[in-house]
Amino acid sequence: MTKFNKIGLVGRPDHKGVVTSLKRLTSYLVNKEKSVFVDEATASLLDNPSANVVTKSELSVSCDLVIVVGGDGSMLNVSKYVASADVPVIGVNRGKLGFLTDILPDEIESKIDDVLSGSYSVEKRFLLDIFLLQDGDSEHLGSALNDVVLHPGSAAQMIEFELFIDDTFVYSQESDGLIIATPTGSTAYALSAGGPIMHPSLDAMVLAPMYPHSLSSRPVVVDGESQIKIMIPSTGSRSPQISCDGDVKYSASSGDQFLIIKKKVSLHLIHPPNHSFYEACRSKLGWGSRLDKGHD
Amino acid sequence: MTKFNKIGLVGRPDHKGVVTSLKRLTSYLVNKEKSVFVDEATASLLDNPSANVVTKSELSVSCDLVIVVGGDGSMLNVSKYVASADVPVIGVNRGKLGFLTDILPDEIESKIDDVLSGSYSVEKRFLLDIFLLQDGDSEHLGSALNDVVLHPGSAAQMIEFELFIDDTFVYSQESDGLIIATPTGSTAYALSAGGPIMHPSLDAMVLAPMYPHSLSSRPVVVDGESQIKIMIPSTGSRSPQISCDGDVKYSASSGDQFLIIKKKVSLHLIHPPNHSFYEACRSKLGWGSRLDKGHD
Amino acid sequence: MTKFNKIGLVGRPDHKGVVTSLKRLTSYLVNKEKSVFVDEATASLLDNPSANVVTKSELSVSCDLVIVVGGDGSMLNVSKYVASADVPVIGVNRGKLGFLTDILPDEIESKIDDVLSGSYSVEKRFLLDIFLLQDGDSEHLGSALNDVVLHPGSAAQMIEFELFIDDTFVYSQESDGLIIATPTGSTAYALSAGGPIMHPSLDAMVLAPMYPHSLSSRPVVVDGESQIKIMIPSTGSRSPQISCDGDVKYSASSGDQFLIIKKKVSLHLIHPPNHSFYEACRSKLGWGSRLDKGHD
Amino acid sequence: MTKFNKIGLVGRPDHKGVVTSLKRLTSYLVNKEKSVFVDEATASLLDNPSANVVTKSELSVSCDLVIVVGGDGSMLNVSKYVASADVPVIGVNRGKLGFLTDILPDEIESKIDDVLSGSYSVEKRFLLDIFLLQDGDSEHLGSALNDVVLHPGSAAQMIEFELFIDDTFVYSQESDGLIIATPTGSTAYALSAGGPIMHPSLDAMVLAPMYPHSLSSRPVVVDGESQIKIMIPSTGSRSPQISCDGDVKYSASSGDQFLIIKKKVSLHLIHPPNHSFYEACRSKLGWGSRLDKGHD
Repeated sequence: MTKFNKIGLVGRPDHKGVVTSLKRLTSYLVNKEKSVFVDEATASLLDNPSANVVTKSELSVSCDLVIVVGGDGSMLNVSKYVASADVPVIGVNRGKLGFLTDILPDEIESKIDDVLSGSYSVEKRFLLDIFLLQDGDSEHLGSALNDVVLHPGSAAQMIEFELFIDDTFVYSQESDGLIIATPTGSTAYALSAGGPIMHPSLDAMVLAPMYPHSLSSRPVVVDGESQIKIMIPSTGSRSPQISCDGDVKYSASSGDQFLIIKKKVSLHLIHPPNHSFYEACRSKLGWGSRLDKGHD
Repeated sequence: MTKFNKIGLVGRPDHKGVVTSLKRLTSYLVNKEKSVFVDEATASLLDNPSANVVTKSELSVSCDLVIVVGGDGSMLNVSKYVASADVPVIGVNRGKLGFLTDILPDEIESKIDDVLSGSYSVEKRFLLDIFLLQDGDSEHLGSALNDVVLHPGSAAQMIEFELFIDDTFVYSQESDGLIIATPTGSTAYALSAGGPIMHPSLDAMVLAPMYPHSLSSRPVVVDGESQIKIMIPSTGSRSPQISCDGDVKYSASSGDQFLIIKKKVSLHLIHPPNHSFYEACRSKLGWGSRLDKGHD
Repeated sequence: MTKFNKIGLVGRPDHKGVVTSLKRLTSYLVNKEKSVFVDEATASLLDNPSANVVTKSELSVSCDLVIVVGGDGSMLNVSKYVASADVPVIGVNRGKLGFLTDILPDEIESKIDDVLSGSYSVEKRFLLDIFLLQDGDSEHLGSALNDVVLHPGSAAQMIEFELFIDDTFVYSQESDGLIIATPTGSTAYALSAGGPIMHPSLDAMVLAPMYPHSLSSRPVVVDGESQIKIMIPSTGSRSPQISCDGDVKYSASSGDQFLIIKKKVSLHLIHPPNHSFYEACRSKLGWGSRLDKGHD
Repeated sequence: MTKFNKIGLVGRPDHKGVVTSLKRLTSYLVNKEKSVFVDEATASLLDNPSANVVTKSELSVSCDLVIVVGGDGSMLNVSKYVASADVPVIGVNRGKLGFLTDILPDEIESKIDDVLSGSYSVEKRFLLDIFLLQDGDSEHLGSALNDVVLHPGSAAQMIEFELFIDDTFVYSQESDGLIIATPTGSTAYALSAGGPIMHPSLDAMVLAPMYPHSLSSRPVVVDGESQIKIMIPSTGSRSPQISCDGDVKYSASSGDQFLIIKKKVSLHLIHPPNHSFYEACRSKLGWGSRLDKGHD
């Protein structure tokens, strides 16, 4: 009836609610005669001998479906592994609606039931790869589901860089940094920086300058297939850092060149029936509901 | 050698520089043994018997290429006619670089020479159509190259409406209005309203709320194929207006529903060689040039 | 024991909750042996023979204290009358916390009790006056507790004007208009236009441009004693309008000059004990509460 | 004829134009029979035996007037010394108009002539002091002419804190930091963060949140006499840093409390005749000039 039989579970360790939801999920899945796989960190939370313990990198290879229990941050961590293995993932949030983790704790059985019985939608969410370009070679620095950020190594200092898109010079900029976000990341850090909300289905990235020295620097939305190149001036003394989804990956030197492009494989994000991106926006951003015409 | 033999000219009447450029263009084109067509308004400016006078609607049908002399505003006017006739258009600006009119007055001969000899690029710029939906019928209200705007009929009053995208409810909003802009319009009014700059090649629209009552309402970028539906509440007493590229097209009533979609035909905008959208951004928005590494 | 013996009541007519609160207030005040005064509109809502009916303009002159029942909008209306008569005012909100009307319906007796027994604070809120300057004369156009707004008579059109502060030229601007707000108005329309929140005690005004053509035009905060002068160009064809607290007061002509200055008399706004402006901000804008350190 | 006889000179070392202007200034002043004082760093640039060499801290004590040659950054450095000594200061900019250094290199003789002959205006610019509060004691951490900034020690991390103004709780906030700026600093970093421009004469500070998690957190302008208190939660693991005018002064620990108040002494900034703050805004921010009514 359903193709999901080997189910991986990943839980964020430092939260009590996560353990409760993990146990509830395991009971439910074992009861449904599914094989449950967990990574070592999750195994120590779960303390259930019926779950198969594997390494984090084996997890996505061994499973048909991965369920992340935590928040949007947990999904960011897992996304790099599961995207490479081409295994779909679904998120259980620990308390309130997330943009990426959209099953509420109380809905676990009913919503997972829907999914296991084939009633769900799949959304492809693309990731970004960032490479350091050196002497004709390129070194992979990291991947990001939300955003790649160029920022000063130490705070309270401006950085300077040149931006090229598809080998066309765009601008040089003095600022606190640059956020390059996917549609998925457009509701996260880039939103605080004045970027637009981009529908998850859009094949586009936004480049949002952070506190630019010039007031006329504004977020730019470009095609998702664009090749973003950032060049650090060779004569400057300021050495920016590169972060992927908030994790520092590299400290740049003068003259460094970076390439940011769409990752070849996407995250396959599963949603229960009737999922709506805009409902998450209304819930998380306080957008207005349907007008109740009867009274004020 | 070139397929452009019948050339239409359109000039904005109330500017001296436009007449000078129109005359210079006509001399040049007649000298090249091209047939020149002008609409009646332009004819009165030009006062040149060698130009064929036609009506504005005949102009685009009769020609292989239309040259607009004026500013970006002139191009907005012409775009609706020429898009329907599927004839390419190119713009001569009256003094400074425009986003749509990118030949400077002094470059007329050299740049048009390039174009006539086949050295140019063509960009497809899509337009928006807005329809009033009524009793199963739909009435076409207007087309826009830049933006469709929903705004209060009289100023200093908020309006209220519901937004649906592809039949999914997005939000209800109390605000000064809503701007729905194409990539072309993203550098115009929508930019003042906090919208992002979208590269002209992007197949997307931005929906930018105008001074929304809620501080968490933000510009949203959606696919260019999206069906945008706006519903005016049936019980409200406020009657917003609809504008296309700044021209008021319709005054709404309670309960009205509007559909905004991509127009079936696009504007074919011709650029001389080496045109760069980002160069226009740098010139018009003051973005930083290449870093001059020799000195501060 | 208390100096408030003649109490005026003003209620917004078109809301059921207002009538309930007005009746509750009247009973309470009559019971306390206070003289109650109402304007004619409020009298028709109240239908209570023990209240003295006077005209709106007599109301503030006859009373020691005016209680406004409604929302912040009701307070805006009343503020012009009571400020001139130098009588203090206090607001009962019809359901949720307002910035100006800070007694909740259920707290009427307890909070008014505090006020009548002398336990309250008084805040001076200044208003703005706008004058048309003509041939050495000046004509008073209106007063505003929140803001004076210069905006296009018909929407979707830019206006152009010059700004002087204390006879020093500041800038010329092409935009959708200009908002000149008091600290009281800084949490209203000016906030949507990107202006800062100004503490009510601050003696300052903010001048917030509306969708300026230039991206580097930004809100400017100046001293409350500043003389703001706006000059409409003599050659333009666009005729902006002047609004005070949202009511259109005047349609400008080419060459018109306007002076905006602080009104000589202030509104004396009374608050129950423990009133905090920042609590209203937290409640209405969703600012973060005290950190609860026990759990996440 | 003039009270300025002992003139201090301070120049930014790493710029050729500064040396040229310093030499020109020294010749001019020696010729006018003024005593010239320089700190050691400036002495090494100047190489002129007629100048008296003193330490930086002696400089302001020894002089009637200090002339800073450099940019606004040089003035920030000097401001702390000269404010304490109550000696007026004037700035020569190395090439373009600054907000604080408003004499152009070519105007040195004419403008300083004006000042020495008594034709000038004096502006009081206040500074901020920041103190660490501990066990009833307070430790002075630094002073700032532009801004005190609370920011993450390492980038790409949010911080969390509570804000009190005059012992009233304002909000808790999760953000990239908080900028507390004087009117002088309102045209610097705080402007990039969405803060308003405040006229230099205004007795106010602006508190601008940096990329706050909540979209409804906005800059707040409060009285210049306000006592700003920031509390770092005792249970958090994130340790923000404190900067004054861009220099890191302190790394905070959990539970730290900071007090930011106006410094007791002000900077006395001297301007040549006809100085206008708004002219600097027009020049540096591209605001519109007087409307030229003759032509478009």
